[in-house]
Amino acid sequence: MSRTMKALVKHKEGQGAQLEEVFVPRPGRGEVLVKVKAAAICGTDGHIYEWDDWAASRIKPPLIFGHEFCGEVVELGEGVENIEEGIFVSVEGHFTCGVCFFCRTGQGHICQDVEIIGVDTAGCFAQYVRVPQENIWKIHEDIPVEVAAIFDPVGNAVHSALVDEIIGNNILITGCGPIGLAAIALCRHAGARKVMATEINEFRRNLAQKMGAHRVFDPRQVDVVQEVFKETQGMGADVLLEMAGKPQAINQGFRALRKGGWASLLGLAPGPVEMDINDGIIFKGARVYGINGRRMYDTWYKMEALLTSGLDVQPLITHSFPMEDFAEAFELVLSGSCGKVILYP
Amino acid sequence: MSRTMKALVKHKEGQGAQLEEVFVPRPGRGEVLVKVKAAAICGTDGHIYEWDDWAASRIKPPLIFGHEFCGEVVELGEGVENIEEGIFVSVEGHFTCGVCFFCRTGQGHICQDVEIIGVDTAGCFAQYVRVPQENIWKIHEDIPVEVAAIFDPVGNAVHSALVDEIIGNNILITGCGPIGLAAIALCRHAGARKVMATEINEFRRNLAQKMGAHRVFDPRQVDVVQEVFKETQGMGADVLLEMAGKPQAINQGFRALRKGGWASLLGLAPGPVEMDINDGIIFKGARVYGINGRRMYDTWYKMEALLTSGLDVQPLITHSFPMEDFAEAFELVLSGSCGKVILYP
Amino acid sequence: MSRTMKALVKHKEGQGAQLEEVFVPRPGRGEVLVKVKAAAICGTDGHIYEWDDWAASRIKPPLIFGHEFCGEVVELGEGVENIEEGIFVSVEGHFTCGVCFFCRTGQGHICQDVEIIGVDTAGCFAQYVRVPQENIWKIHEDIPVEVAAIFDPVGNAVHSALVDEIIGNNILITGCGPIGLAAIALCRHAGARKVMATEINEFRRNLAQKMGAHRVFDPRQVDVVQEVFKETQGMGADVLLEMAGKPQAINQGFRALRKGGWASLLGLAPGPVEMDINDGIIFKGARVYGINGRRMYDTWYKMEALLTSGLDVQPLITHSFPMEDFAEAFELVLSGSCGKVILYP
Amino acid sequence: MSRTMKALVKHKEGQGAQLEEVFVPRPGRGEVLVKVKAAAICGTDGHIYEWDDWAASRIKPPLIFGHEFCGEVVELGEGVENIEEGIFVSVEGHFTCGVCFFCRTGQGHICQDVEIIGVDTAGCFAQYVRVPQENIWKIHEDIPVEVAAIFDPVGNAVHSALVDEIIGNNILITGCGPIGLAAIALCRHAGARKVMATEINEFRRNLAQKMGAHRVFDPRQVDVVQEVFKETQGMGADVLLEMAGKPQAINQGFRALRKGGWASLLGLAPGPVEMDINDGIIFKGARVYGINGRRMYDTWYKMEALLTSGLDVQPLITHSFPMEDFAEAFELVLSGSCGKVILYP
Repeated sequence: MSRTMKALVKHKEGQGAQLEEVFVPRPGRGEVLVKVKAAAICGTDGHIYEWDDWAASRIKPPLIFGHEFCGEVVELGEGVENIEEGIFVSVEGHFTCGVCFFCRTGQGHICQDVEIIGVDTAGCFAQYVRVPQENIWKIHEDIPVEVAAIFDPVGNAVHSALVDEIIGNNILITGCGPIGLAAIALCRHAGARKVMATEINEFRRNLAQKMGAHRVFDPRQVDVVQEVFKETQGMGADVLLEMAGKPQAINQGFRALRKGGWASLLGLAPGPVEMDINDGIIFKGARVYGINGRRMYDTWYKMEALLTSGLDVQPLITHSFPMEDFAEAFELVLSGSCGKVILYP
Repeated sequence: MSRTMKALVKHKEGQGAQLEEVFVPRPGRGEVLVKVKAAAICGTDGHIYEWDDWAASRIKPPLIFGHEFCGEVVELGEGVENIEEGIFVSVEGHFTCGVCFFCRTGQGHICQDVEIIGVDTAGCFAQYVRVPQENIWKIHEDIPVEVAAIFDPVGNAVHSALVDEIIGNNILITGCGPIGLAAIALCRHAGARKVMATEINEFRRNLAQKMGAHRVFDPRQVDVVQEVFKETQGMGADVLLEMAGKPQAINQGFRALRKGGWASLLGLAPGPVEMDINDGIIFKGARVYGINGRRMYDTWYKMEALLTSGLDVQPLITHSFPMEDFAEAFELVLSGSCGKVILYP
Repeated sequence: MSRTMKALVKHKEGQGAQLEEVFVPRPGRGEVLVKVKAAAICGTDGHIYEWDDWAASRIKPPLIFGHEFCGEVVELGEGVENIEEGIFVSVEGHFTCGVCFFCRTGQGHICQDVEIIGVDTAGCFAQYVRVPQENIWKIHEDIPVEVAAIFDPVGNAVHSALVDEIIGNNILITGCGPIGLAAIALCRHAGARKVMATEINEFRRNLAQKMGAHRVFDPRQVDVVQEVFKETQGMGADVLLEMAGKPQAINQGFRALRKGGWASLLGLAPGPVEMDINDGIIFKGARVYGINGRRMYDTWYKMEALLTSGLDVQPLITHSFPMEDFAEAFELVLSGSCGKVILYP
Repeated sequence: MSRTMKALVKHKEGQGAQLEEVFVPRPGRGEVLVKVKAAAICGTDGHIYEWDDWAASRIKPPLIFGHEFCGEVVELGEGVENIEEGIFVSVEGHFTCGVCFFCRTGQGHICQDVEIIGVDTAGCFAQYVRVPQENIWKIHEDIPVEVAAIFDPVGNAVHSALVDEIIGNNILITGCGPIGLAAIALCRHAGARKVMATEINEFRRNLAQKMGAHRVFDPRQVDVVQEVFKETQGMGADVLLEMAGKPQAINQGFRALRKGGWASLLGLAPGPVEMDINDGIIFKGARVYGINGRRMYDTWYKMEALLTSGLDVQPLITHSFPMEDFAEAFELVLSGSCGKVILYP
């Protein structure tokens, strides 16, 4: 193995990133070195690339970013057990403390001392990445590399949708980014009655239909709330999966939700949101779930079960680039006219 | 309307039944008269016909029996509201008191003063049947008559399977009577990982495959527990739907269940069952649900949602007879070499 | 029985109300006439009395208002069963349609055609009131009249608090109106670890301590969030019961909630609320429940069990007046310096 | 520290045990050495002492047995973090693999490769015991030593009772061994309506009353089912906590359970149990939970919250002995005329 590797580095504050030759990390005690086969660009990576307010407040350059990927285990640190070199793996990107209340009660996804790969520590836009052994997820060799690279966002969709009942329910998904798109396929697979989705980008509306949505609305063209009520004989959606993080979408979603329905909130809003809590939640007797990451590792086991028994998320992957063409790839992601975009390091 | 009608009457204690000409019932206050379009024979009807111990202890001849059916509303009693003559309906066969703790808390299916149509009161093996307005379930005209006639057992399957999580889980269904068969299709529709079923009757094993089972076992030919462990990489079934009511099946089911799994018990055993509670339930930390009838009317709404969005139970209906040929129909039901058997009155 | 009665009537748009002599209502089919023994004034009645925006948009004078009460059944309409004259009763004030999806699935509290007594139909600030037989709740003769008069708000507290786990949890109750105060006693009875409450009115802060709160904060004097974290070793409250309906209280509540905690929202805000959904709900992976009325009739059965086995809400009742002194009573309620205020008609 | 210590050893197959001088264990990597302050005798230890069928099939002498204890950390193995010498601790006695499906999804209590201290590995009837760092539970210095020694059985009670709703419910606890007794106090603390218990031993019936039971029945003297129905106005118990493991108690429990009620099964039966599943579970629509150990570490956090906010289990501890007098202590435990019995090593 070479001592150096290519990596995409957020080298300084401000817009952009650059490709650099850096040292290959060495796995410490309990750590594993993974050779990255494919990485995927998340919306968060777009924020880091563009250097928005959130990125400026959170990221400390220089940092190799990127957190969605799969690869091959190529080196084991001291004390690593139950993992062999050569296996094909994905990685849970939340590195947890293991000893807090949350970690000790099966809620590691909200660990109080969590570190996120590609945000707090060196990420996967690189030829090699170092991760704790606990975060390794072995995957079947026959799962395509590109699918294995997007377990992180697909897991978000699984966590969001399966927190309460989907089967036989009418679902409204606000926002067809990759997680919303994955949720469409998942809800169909889970026996949803009717899957409705909203999205302003035409490319993604088309993709939503490919993923199996019964109806896809452009919220700038139609009255989403009215359409949902029309599609549900005046009842409203049984379920809201909020994946846009836009104040307007959030409020539309809660207006379209039926009494006694439930909602998962995953999309992050740019700031505080003005909400009609009375009509949207209280009078409806609604249940609302905040969704953060993936349950460790319930979500992963469930995802594996689904992907090996008929859930197909492959249409979600629309573009791929060699890592050298990162500028083009990020431009595409920021345009919104894509599904998942893969980088090959 | 004629003042008399044909009806299949359990006329005396002992085996058999006979076709009689009886008065058409008149709907009282809050009651509705339904003209039966199609009725289906339940295993319970087989017990009444054969006059087993249970029947001898519960049934008071003479009684028109039968409780699975659909038909058309032809007459309204005084004070009936929200129901019109001419509508196509199915009927929930548990007539509840409406005022007990259970009825007042959404648990009417376990009402303390329940009466069951065709068991406690005149049933549906007749040209007309009288039912309380609360028990009427309006159905879409485009649902086939035969499917509308079996909402009762399909509802049992829905109640059994949706009491806990199906999606992504490996399911073992012990017993492929009509409810077990419906559960197979339902679990597939609900995104189960692998659906395994056991059944000693060859006709029903073939039907189980038509309904979508991945694997069907003859418990007299193979070691079911071993097969389930093989199919699940040594984990055992995540879910047991017990629909046989045979001591051996119950015990096989719990042995095949994985730790932390869950079970619905629907099949009624002929008497007390010797069970290994320690290994079957306690050490496994299993959850077990007793299933009685259908939730009123949660199960019905859910069933309607499912049947209008892709759940197909039609292969379950394998035979039909004019009511005059009831002897042949019951012989078939008692042989077990059938799915649902329909009688046209 | 006299043909006329005294009643407190919202006689016209604008502030105030007046005592009038009106006809005693006659119970229709399925209805019951109740002689009011004691009525209690709700915050909603205060809004009607003061004629705020909500009242102006909802109430159609002339209207006898009031919805919290107990009394004696004195006359039965035609067809009433299971209720006898002379019994001591409280009344669920949501009159439901009985036939919608919600009513048929044990969710009558969110019935789509609900009518609320004292808002949509003649209320209980009168000597007699007419109610549907379904809404009658028989109570033990040995429950004090004043307690029986406040089953409505106590039921709100029961519904809010028991929707998820209380035992062993640290609870924050924002707002010590009567429902918040009842929730304090309830959480103590339910084995809460530490019950913390916020309230700006000094009288109610003192009452909160009488009801059993471990800590009571004046949000104008201390930093509530900081105090809650201090009391919980930096974890935050496991549970938020939001009963103030003030934007500031709602936001404080969610900031003070721990990761993985849960919240009931009962307090109605005066309009849309600007909320930090990201930090308050999503990153925390919180569960949020909208609470509307009482579950019919789960909440009532639970309340009866609690009030007959040790839950003491009597300290909550602080003042009582003959109905003639309504002006004084309303002034007191509007000042906030009281618990529950009783009117004797 | 001395190189040898006193330990109570199951030295050979057959009845009895003997005190021996053995080497003090050395903590390996990730392990901790605990100096035992107090140990408690479990029924399981009684089985080992008496050498019943279960013991003969499971235990491999020579073995230091015992698994309920508290003590002081006196030595840290290599790589131990977050634990300091000198702290006062209890220990979860299930040593888990950490990598199986169960361990990775917050269900370590049913780990597929679990080892139990005092059964599979050297136990706590000794001056020192070696445990994995993960199993250490730090406790407040002001919790009495004897209470700290019985966190294991108290945790069983917490796990059994809090798996579903207790508040406002009528509870039947079959069997007043230490776990049943702890459950009595817990149910009272949790706001149960009426706590009823059954027990054949008079000493324990008296203790049950001290722990707070409203009614205690001797099943040899009264018809338990009839008594429970009498105490609950004919409804039956809302909740069954089965802690006897006797076939008769199990069947009585399920007969006394109300429709729609729930049951925790903790007591281990001596073999298969003949059960009326139809009437006991299915027709009732009951929910049944198998209870194994304690949830790791949800149960521990909950137990700590309860013991520091009013739950008092101290009356449960009735006897204590120096370890030298083990023969007398075991005789007492086997007689059943005691609560918890403490050994001081």
